Amino acid sequence: SKRHTITLLPGDGIGPEVISVARNVLNLAASIEGIEFKYQEVPVGGAALDLTGVPLPEETLLAAKQSDAVLLGAIGGYKWDKNEKHLKPETGLLKLREGLKVFANLRPATVLPQLVDASTLKREVAEGVDLMVVRELTGGIYFGKPRGFGTNENGEEIGFNTEVYAAYEIDRIARVAFETARKRKGKLCSVDKANVLEASMFWRKRIMAIALEYPDVELSHMYVDNAAMQLVRDPKQFDTIVTNNIFGDILSDEASMITGSIGMLPSASLGESGPGLFEPIHGSAPDIAGQDKANPLATILSAAMLLKYGLGEEKAAKRIEAAVLDTLNKGFRTGDIYSAGTKLVGCKEMGEEVLKSV
Amino acid sequence: SKRHTITLLPGDGIGPEVISVARNVLNLAASIEGIEFKYQEVPVGGAALDLTGVPLPEETLLAAKQSDAVLLGAIGGYKWDKNEKHLKPETGLLKLREGLKVFANLRPATVLPQLVDASTLKREVAEGVDLMVVRELTGGIYFGKPRGFGTNENGEEIGFNTEVYAAYEIDRIARVAFETARKRKGKLCSVDKANVLEASMFWRKRIMAIALEYPDVELSHMYVDNAAMQLVRDPKQFDTIVTNNIFGDILSDEASMITGSIGMLPSASLGESGPGLFEPIHGSAPDIAGQDKANPLATILSAAMLLKYGLGEEKAAKRIEAAVLDTLNKGFRTGDIYSAGTKLVGCKEMGEEVLKSV
Ligand SMILES: CC(C)[C@H](C(=O)O)[C@@H](O)C(=O)O
Ligand SMILES: CC(C)[C@H](C(=O)O)[C@@H](O)C(=O)O
Repeated sequence: SKRHTITLLPGDGIGPEVISVARNVLNLAASIEGIEFKYQEVPVGGAALDLTGVPLPEETLLAAKQSDAVLLGAIGGYKWDKNEKHLKPETGLLKLREGLKVFANLRPATVLPQLVDASTLKREVAEGVDLMVVRELTGGIYFGKPRGFGTNENGEEIGFNTEVYAAYEIDRIARVAFETARKRKGKLCSVDKANVLEASMFWRKRIMAIALEYPDVELSHMYVDNAAMQLVRDPKQFDTIVTNNIFGDILSDEASMITGSIGMLPSASLGESGPGLFEPIHGSAPDIAGQDKANPLATILSAAMLLKYGLGEEKAAKRIEAAVLDTLNKGFRTGDIYSAGTKLVGCKEMGEEVLKSV
Repeated sequence: SKRHTITLLPGDGIGPEVISVARNVLNLAASIEGIEFKYQEVPVGGAALDLTGVPLPEETLLAAKQSDAVLLGAIGGYKWDKNEKHLKPETGLLKLREGLKVFANLRPATVLPQLVDASTLKREVAEGVDLMVVRELTGGIYFGKPRGFGTNENGEEIGFNTEVYAAYEIDRIARVAFETARKRKGKLCSVDKANVLEASMFWRKRIMAIALEYPDVELSHMYVDNAAMQLVRDPKQFDTIVTNNIFGDILSDEASMITGSIGMLPSASLGESGPGLFEPIHGSAPDIAGQDKANPLATILSAAMLLKYGLGEEKAAKRIEAAVLDTLNKGFRTGDIYSAGTKLVGCKEMGEEVLKSV
């Protein structure tokens, strides 16, 4: 039987609850498929700050690097909100992405027929939405230098950041995006602000160069302001979207809210080699932490992405995805996706129901 | 009677059609209120490129600067899409904003009861939305230096831009935003990415400093990714939003699409002194240009903003706003806002109907 080492990063807020449930599901699906896991659980974010004084201890990064895949719960909370930048939980997450070199962030936004009414969009607009945002995750304005505080030539105080992309950074995310589109409906929309920004003009130029390698994929370009509109007007027009770090942050969150069920949405962050990082796209939800109210399905589906994209274990991944659909079909719902006529359950019970269907 | 000089910039696509209609409405409302206008019509954008080889001729900027207010139609079109940066119609618009020093861009997004079904959002979510985005318009990554193309320390090709804000730039847009919120429901939400970007941390710090001058306004802060979600989830939670140039570009377009009727939405761009720039938020719509299909109401409402914010002529402004509502109540609709049971009209006829109600 195959063996893999998994690093679990429960993190903050509802993170530990959803990770514990997802771990059980992962275990069962794997054992049925003859896969064996070794787990190591290490702290990140606020949990790591409280324990060690830094949001990403060296041991945590090392453990993550030496494993085959990393499953993260969530990070952040009011408690650390006023911390200085290098002591913010978020900084731990950014350093983890950087350290693992996971430059490609895949964020599916799918409207399940069972949950179409959870969207604030009209049924006919939301129904059938199935898009994937491929977000560049280790470059752009998040990491660009110079950055900081200072004074300008008139002696005025300033704050500044640099949006910068090198050719190789765009080329590699472009290839991931074209490959992703090829496995989906073969349509890729690259989002930029090339009518204003040089970084975006360069982005578009490189995307067009890489497009020559993928003549079978239909490429289009859209300005980011228009993309933010089109996601509301007609999200079904999109198949795969590729964009930079900051535009991807904004648009993937907008897309996820369009589905109406961010408690359901997983994500995968992948590098050239080395372990991938898998996490629900929702936050740490400190207001409901520890109350057994969180929806564990996004983390369970992140575990499925871990199996598929991280370990190439397609069969175990499909098993988990099918179990989640089955559980929804049986009518089980956590509070965030509850509607009249369905069965309200807590985080743990939802996990147990999924286990029954694995 | 009072006299004002107005610069008309019809621009490209549907620009000339909507400007011609709006001019008639402006004229009638003004003459009833005893106001006299002198007009000068000058080219900008693609129209200027074709005529003079540059997207903002010196004469155009000079004419605009020397007038009391500027009314712009729209700029851009496929024809100039592949132009180099300094020969893009968009560059003309950016230079105009810079030249007029109109740092404060006010973008209302209102769902009129008559048009609530035009939104892709469910009726109960869209109904009653009435928010104002105050976007910083002459700073940030749109204008920041250094910018351009080059090579990094590894000799790799790069494209780059600088997001930078000086204290005075944030302070002045903050004051406009607090004043705006004060005249509305007294709630201001500042949108940034202060968990990652130094420019945003500095933004938040200055917003909080200026907030001390406005203890009666309720201030909150929101990360831009969350704001993009919240606009879809529950747009009614917002009253006034203040944000930087690029986030404002994205969020104001998203907010406008949430209303479902971007053919209806005006904008005002204001400086410390000097003429303001007023324009519909929609684009030049080259596909329907010259076909008498465009919705002139956004430009007519921009003319109302011109009267109110640009010239302090509140009564004439109210007259136009009331005439637009009246025309909608009578059931007249252009194609973009048409629904069964209403009367489909073209751009000119819509203008004539509004004139009847002025
Ligand atoms: C927490 C924050 C730093 C992070 C980001 O901006 O990347 C989050 O919003 C995300 O999208 O994963
Ligand atoms: C045309 C373009 C340069 C402009 C901008 O990005 O500011 C437009 O999108 C707008 O919002 O007015």
